[in-house]
Amino acid sequence: MNREQLYKQIRRKGSFLCLGLDTELQKIPEHLRQEEFPLFAFNRQILDATHPYMVACKPNVAFYESMGTAGWVQFEMTVNYLREQYPDIFIIADAKRGDIGNTARKYAETFFHQTDCDAVTVAPYMGQDSVTPFLGYPGKWAVLLALTSNPGADDFQMLPSGNGERLFETVLRKSAAWGTADNMMYVVGATRASMLVKVREIVPDHFLLIPGVGAQGGDLKEVAEYGLNSQCGLLVNSSRAIIYADSSKNFAAAAGEKAAEMQGEMRQLLTC
Amino acid sequence: MNREQLYKQIRRKGSFLCLGLDTELQKIPEHLRQEEFPLFAFNRQILDATHPYMVACKPNVAFYESMGTAGWVQFEMTVNYLREQYPDIFIIADAKRGDIGNTARKYAETFFHQTDCDAVTVAPYMGQDSVTPFLGYPGKWAVLLALTSNPGADDFQMLPSGNGERLFETVLRKSAAWGTADNMMYVVGATRASMLVKVREIVPDHFLLIPGVGAQGGDLKEVAEYGLNSQCGLLVNSSRAIIYADSSKNFAAAAGEKAAEMQGEMRQLLTC
Repeated sequence: MNREQLYKQIRRKGSFLCLGLDTELQKIPEHLRQEEFPLFAFNRQILDATHPYMVACKPNVAFYESMGTAGWVQFEMTVNYLREQYPDIFIIADAKRGDIGNTARKYAETFFHQTDCDAVTVAPYMGQDSVTPFLGYPGKWAVLLALTSNPGADDFQMLPSGNGERLFETVLRKSAAWGTADNMMYVVGATRASMLVKVREIVPDHFLLIPGVGAQGGDLKEVAEYGLNSQCGLLVNSSRAIIYADSSKNFAAAAGEKAAEMQGEMRQLLTC
Repeated sequence: MNREQLYKQIRRKGSFLCLGLDTELQKIPEHLRQEEFPLFAFNRQILDATHPYMVACKPNVAFYESMGTAGWVQFEMTVNYLREQYPDIFIIADAKRGDIGNTARKYAETFFHQTDCDAVTVAPYMGQDSVTPFLGYPGKWAVLLALTSNPGADDFQMLPSGNGERLFETVLRKSAAWGTADNMMYVVGATRASMLVKVREIVPDHFLLIPGVGAQGGDLKEVAEYGLNSQCGLLVNSSRAIIYADSSKNFAAAAGEKAAEMQGEMRQLLTC
């Protein structure tokens, strides 16, 4: 999905919500745990209830991978279900991959060929040749970590890195030259919404994927105030606050209500 | 496997060779490509021929993952085969994972529970809480990226990061306090062997995983000169130079010869 198409969906749905599928066997309703494909059974019902309110969906690959082959199958089933039932939804594999060129090409194959995701999250530490292999696929995206929402972000991302910049700023500035606003996005944690001012100075046009709203404590209004650009430019992720809104048999309807509520707030904030 | 056990294997075998299984369908001998599990069929024969000459084995997860579920099955088969046939070999999942705490815990489950690897490579960009979940398993290890062997390493790892240090030095210094030389190792690229002097000043006792000898151009003697410590402290990886030494039906024997040759060189260099 290209930038124009994504922006069109945002306007059509009045939403820049990305739903994170951090689906965990121990946290899904008990009656689903005996299913042959419990993570997929959960995801399917969640997606059926929430799809009108979101424009993007972000399965967190770790949660599937940790179940081995059985989990990988359910990651693939989830992506395929989205592609078939809801082709208007932008799919981000949250995998945070990053390796030397020949290996990065394999990761790009994994998420762009083997499964038909639109985007994959990528770690910047290994530099340009670990990122560019994700940029050669029309309509596909690398979502590069810039400033994350966890406490450990302070360990390295906030360090000075020369030229009066901090490391996350240098990551933004350098990497912006490797691709364009049509094949790269950035992860910027909502727990530091005021940092978005600095981020927008460096990458005014890029889409930003904002985790950390909800369970991690970020504030949606602040994110919108500092982060929106003329084509929206934001995908705000919420995972646990939506998918685990209720643990009874009513879980999907409760997730739908929670997603609708966030979409309602987003519609108010959308100025573009 | 703990540090004492690993060191014992190194002395017993006269080798600090790590064999990288970057196994790729397009590169394995043609007669194996029609097998039900071609990557595993290749790996098994390679391992049977090379195991006397190495102490560690490093499947590169990207190469399996890129074949989807079918590839993930063969990654698991490879790890299980190593565990059953060659329990004296230290298994490193080369996965370069890195995410916030609750997700990092899932990745640790993937490689330490779901598959029984001894170690997993981890990226440092997200800081302490993305690394510590890998450190709570006795006898298991996080192998943290410090200085990599690819051209992109210059983009961020070599930048000044305050206190007169470069970023990779700060990564070494800070992260060394998160664990110990018994649950952390570091990736240091062999293409910059002279940097090992600086690395050894900061982490004299830790094991270093050295990629980039062979296909990527690093020099084994130089690595040993600057990197060895009193308990060896080195695992030198070679992938393509060994596993693709020959593409005929004779591939496994050729790989065994190449591994034996490297082990011979290593035996000369082992002073501890």
